[in-house]
Amino acid sequence: MSRLDVFIDRMVSQRACIDFAVQATSHLSGPVFELGLGNGRTYDHIREVVSGRDIFVFEREVASNPASTPPEDRVLLGDVRETLPAALARFGATASIIHADLGGHNLERNDQFARAISPAIEPLLAVGGLMVSSDCMYFEALTEIEIPENAVAGRCFIYRKDA
Amino acid sequence: MSRLDVFIDRMVSQRACIDFAVQATSHLSGPVFELGLGNGRTYDHIREVVSGRDIFVFEREVASNPASTPPEDRVLLGDVRETLPAALARFGATASIIHADLGGHNLERNDQFARAISPAIEPLLAVGGLMVSSDCMYFEALTEIEIPENAVAGRCFIYRKDA
Repeated sequence: MSRLDVFIDRMVSQRACIDFAVQATSHLSGPVFELGLGNGRTYDHIREVVSGRDIFVFEREVASNPASTPPEDRVLLGDVRETLPAALARFGATASIIHADLGGHNLERNDQFARAISPAIEPLLAVGGLMVSSDCMYFEALTEIEIPENAVAGRCFIYRKDA
Repeated sequence: MSRLDVFIDRMVSQRACIDFAVQATSHLSGPVFELGLGNGRTYDHIREVVSGRDIFVFEREVASNPASTPPEDRVLLGDVRETLPAALARFGATASIIHADLGGHNLERNDQFARAISPAIEPLLAVGGLMVSSDCMYFEALTEIEIPENAVAGRCFIYRKDA
């Protein structure tokens, strides 16, 4: 498998898992959190498939394509190690979907980062809410669920907050 | 269609067209030219599927993932408006495949760039050689051919140099 193959699998799986999560949480009205904006392609997809829910983007510095730059009041600017706890104080356990693509090239550093931020992500989810990630996460009480058929194993992960 | 949808279609089409081109030119031994290295994912794919042919990368400044950085003597460093004519002097009309993903966000500027470099690309191809591009190109004498079934129309283009 080339790096292009892996990348395509990751993007296809990301889309499949987001689409699945939007359907599976359609009974929830809480906000959708996108961790990391990057180019803005995935944000653009989320805002296309989500309706009736607020979408907030966590990002250190906005550098997205102008075609998919979120409104200023929907960006939570700063390091997620600070903005995630701040979001908990502001929103409580209300998020219907949290999506993260840590997306670094260094797998070991990604994994360390995933371990570091998992405890700050976990309390934000509403009961029934889903966390979709391109990396394996480290949660105490969330349940890892099956990814949809059109996603590729190992390229994305979905976790659910049960009652 | 979201920008993520368009991007996935582009990457899938790029891979499909490269794979097709490698098969369709398997009788040729001339070099493969990759215009633009970027992250190096597509270069990584090309070197996986091409065998027995030299691969040269045209790039202004190498900033690829270390996992897919070409050997120094296979990088033609500089602006393609200079390195393409230099390659013609060095290699003549010998290229079996030329691949380009201009990949800018500004469609109009991409198109201008495609027009500007098309005349410098065209003479590099061997008879039977293929040019694969994510953008529409502007050639005098190359024949645009059908893209493979698993590629998406408008997301990639293939041109052939006939005898």
